[in-house]
Amino acid sequence: MDNIKSYVGQHKDRFINELVELLKIPSVSADSAYSQDVINTAEAVKESLEKAGCDKVELCETPGYPIVYGEKFIDPNLPTVLVYGHYDVQPPDPVELWTSPPFEPVIKETELHPEGAIFARGACDDKGQMYMHVKALEYMTQNGNLPCNVKFMIEGEEEVGSPSLSWFVERNQEKLKNDVILISDTGMISNTQPSITTGLRGLSYVEVEVTGPNRDLHSGLYGGAVANPINILAKMIAQLHDENNHITIPGFYDRVEELSREERDEMAKAPFSLEAYKRALDIDDVYGEATYTTNERNSIRPTLDVNGIWGGYIGEGAKTVIASKAYAKISMRLVPDQDWKEITELFTKHFESIAPKGVKVKVTPHHGGQAYVTPIDSIGYQAAAAAYEESFGVKPIPVRSGGSIPIVALFEKELKSKTIMMGFGLDSDAIHSPNEHFGVFNYLKGIETIPLFYKYFTEMTK
Amino acid sequence: MDNIKSYVGQHKDRFINELVELLKIPSVSADSAYSQDVINTAEAVKESLEKAGCDKVELCETPGYPIVYGEKFIDPNLPTVLVYGHYDVQPPDPVELWTSPPFEPVIKETELHPEGAIFARGACDDKGQMYMHVKALEYMTQNGNLPCNVKFMIEGEEEVGSPSLSWFVERNQEKLKNDVILISDTGMISNTQPSITTGLRGLSYVEVEVTGPNRDLHSGLYGGAVANPINILAKMIAQLHDENNHITIPGFYDRVEELSREERDEMAKAPFSLEAYKRALDIDDVYGEATYTTNERNSIRPTLDVNGIWGGYIGEGAKTVIASKAYAKISMRLVPDQDWKEITELFTKHFESIAPKGVKVKVTPHHGGQAYVTPIDSIGYQAAAAAYEESFGVKPIPVRSGGSIPIVALFEKELKSKTIMMGFGLDSDAIHSPNEHFGVFNYLKGIETIPLFYKYFTEMTK
Repeated sequence: MDNIKSYVGQHKDRFINELVELLKIPSVSADSAYSQDVINTAEAVKESLEKAGCDKVELCETPGYPIVYGEKFIDPNLPTVLVYGHYDVQPPDPVELWTSPPFEPVIKETELHPEGAIFARGACDDKGQMYMHVKALEYMTQNGNLPCNVKFMIEGEEEVGSPSLSWFVERNQEKLKNDVILISDTGMISNTQPSITTGLRGLSYVEVEVTGPNRDLHSGLYGGAVANPINILAKMIAQLHDENNHITIPGFYDRVEELSREERDEMAKAPFSLEAYKRALDIDDVYGEATYTTNERNSIRPTLDVNGIWGGYIGEGAKTVIASKAYAKISMRLVPDQDWKEITELFTKHFESIAPKGVKVKVTPHHGGQAYVTPIDSIGYQAAAAAYEESFGVKPIPVRSGGSIPIVALFEKELKSKTIMMGFGLDSDAIHSPNEHFGVFNYLKGIETIPLFYKYFTEMTK
Repeated sequence: MDNIKSYVGQHKDRFINELVELLKIPSVSADSAYSQDVINTAEAVKESLEKAGCDKVELCETPGYPIVYGEKFIDPNLPTVLVYGHYDVQPPDPVELWTSPPFEPVIKETELHPEGAIFARGACDDKGQMYMHVKALEYMTQNGNLPCNVKFMIEGEEEVGSPSLSWFVERNQEKLKNDVILISDTGMISNTQPSITTGLRGLSYVEVEVTGPNRDLHSGLYGGAVANPINILAKMIAQLHDENNHITIPGFYDRVEELSREERDEMAKAPFSLEAYKRALDIDDVYGEATYTTNERNSIRPTLDVNGIWGGYIGEGAKTVIASKAYAKISMRLVPDQDWKEITELFTKHFESIAPKGVKVKVTPHHGGQAYVTPIDSIGYQAAAAAYEESFGVKPIPVRSGGSIPIVALFEKELKSKTIMMGFGLDSDAIHSPNEHFGVFNYLKGIETIPLFYKYFTEMTK
């Protein structure tokens, strides 16, 4: 695979242009207004896999959006890598904060990306990182050095909790049989210090509704005499954390994996500047659970955040109204060995229990997933580490991520194989935020590194 | 004025149709999208005053929407009544909860309005009640029995706090000179038990903005490590009340007028059924400040309510984001002798003081006004009481309202005259809510009663 660098250098403009075309399609899975675009994106991914050399590609129907399945089979005696990715993206709002339209990709230089970065929703999460695998396959098939069998499973519902994926995986265990699962949907420490994500947090996402009076009321005539659903919702949300920012839901911490002092000291070695962190976010201080560091708070500790809240009059000007209803979207990040279904039940029970008389409360679970940890002594991890070291010239560091890819735990359960998370994005890429971008360097480096994983994984498996 | 009943009976259909036409114009002052409609409404009111017999009508320019001024002058030796009303209306949202479009008036029967009620935004507040005065004037000029001079001042910014009215009043004290101010922008106990509003609460309306990180963040990567503006805003709002639902802003209660046990007992005599109140709102219990009754909570006690809240992802589905900003609109109802400007400062100071590190807080005052109390021994009150008693056959009860008409205090200060609040609406008319309506009985009864006020006020003044 000595010519991988030269092949990428030779085709880089085309690689970038192909990704830009894919990014132009607004495949927002959370909003049904974009459903046709999501489907069009699936079609585009299917074509790209065919062009890249898969000898069998299909759009697999599911109860939701189709899953793009592709495979290149060369020898039953060789190992099989299953690549997972997703072609859907987060909603772009608030759109007004984008410096360029979210679905009109442009390449701009940034402090961290002197070679330029592609700005567009999905540039990093996950179209860009998913497409690296497509181009890596193209390289290996074009150069006749694909060392093993490969399967692709690219879904379109990851950003809404992959409701159809388990349905699909349970029904296609033979088709999806593999020796290792490869995902690029995470990040690395920096462009000079690669890292491999060995832990993911689980997730429980719920929506709550607080109902007071049966209609909106004049706040002058009723103010102070009836429970105001917005004030009550605020009060209930405030009660979910205590003065140490511990979550107050009874039983919430019962199964939480407590790391040893040694493990925590090991984690603390990862390069991190609290000053730079605060500067980057323009905050005067961090905020979180007492007795834990920032890196612990967002990786090995469970959290509860309100992701959205709304109620009453939110238009221009003033309206003296007491709303009939108030709403919030609340998500909890979970750690090993919390069970997301159990946590969802604990939340629901607790939230209903703290509602005062005068209001009715409804909790609707959205979706969830289990946390996951990858053993670093596995062949998959070793192969990935060797690939990074060869292409970056630096040994990658194993890190726990605060993010969630709920389906990773599902894969282990259903497909009985380990997942390796080779991420090439940076925290600063603003995924899920306005002005999401993906470094051109990172994109091309990913295409360079992935074939090396195939090589080492095949060698180590023999 | 013996023929007033027959005149109203004879022209009732026209009176209703004229009001319906006025209600069709969506004069929403809070939303600049409707600005042309607001101006068109002013024009329509001007025409109606000319037709009703004013000998001088003009649209007076202000920094905001024009004020319609009209007058009918018959004798400098006779007293002058100044009628105040407003032609703007509250925003209609949530529009989906209206059973008929808010600006397509329809007449429907209700339990409390067997003779039918006009359903439309502004039907009661205040187009319907304001137009009663226009038709009352028509009756008196048509029948040559107008007993005194009359002036009209109808504004178009009441629902946004009358920002231009004080500007106008201060500059036109001579023009607005009067012996009593008459307003119909309140309600009465029931169609069989009229009441006169003798007290109004003051108001301080602010908007707050809580800013955390400088951009929306992925809740997995940052959750638990940075202050989430929505969680913080909820926490700060929750802190504004203690466990007895007392407002915790230091100094907030310092100037609050404490009523004597006797006054409270007197108030408690007004007919009220807590069961019916709860049933009407479909709530299992009321909620408010400890040691006060429902009727005290919404009339003689100051309150703090969130009128709107928003932040983060509020669209369909789920988005795992930590918002950069969260917002709320908060209003405080004030009682004599709280000063709304002082309260706004106290709120701002307190709200900023409870913001934790990690967020920035901005408080923007919207508008406000002072509370007001009318003495029941004034000629104006006595004349109004006599008018109600003659047209309803029942003595009216003086009541304190929880609502606010900030400009009433302004009138007393600038024009040195008392304001009489002759309201003909019912609490159930859903002003500021979907399906606002105004009883046909109430509308016509108002037109019948108002000329009697002119008669008695003129007689008692002699």
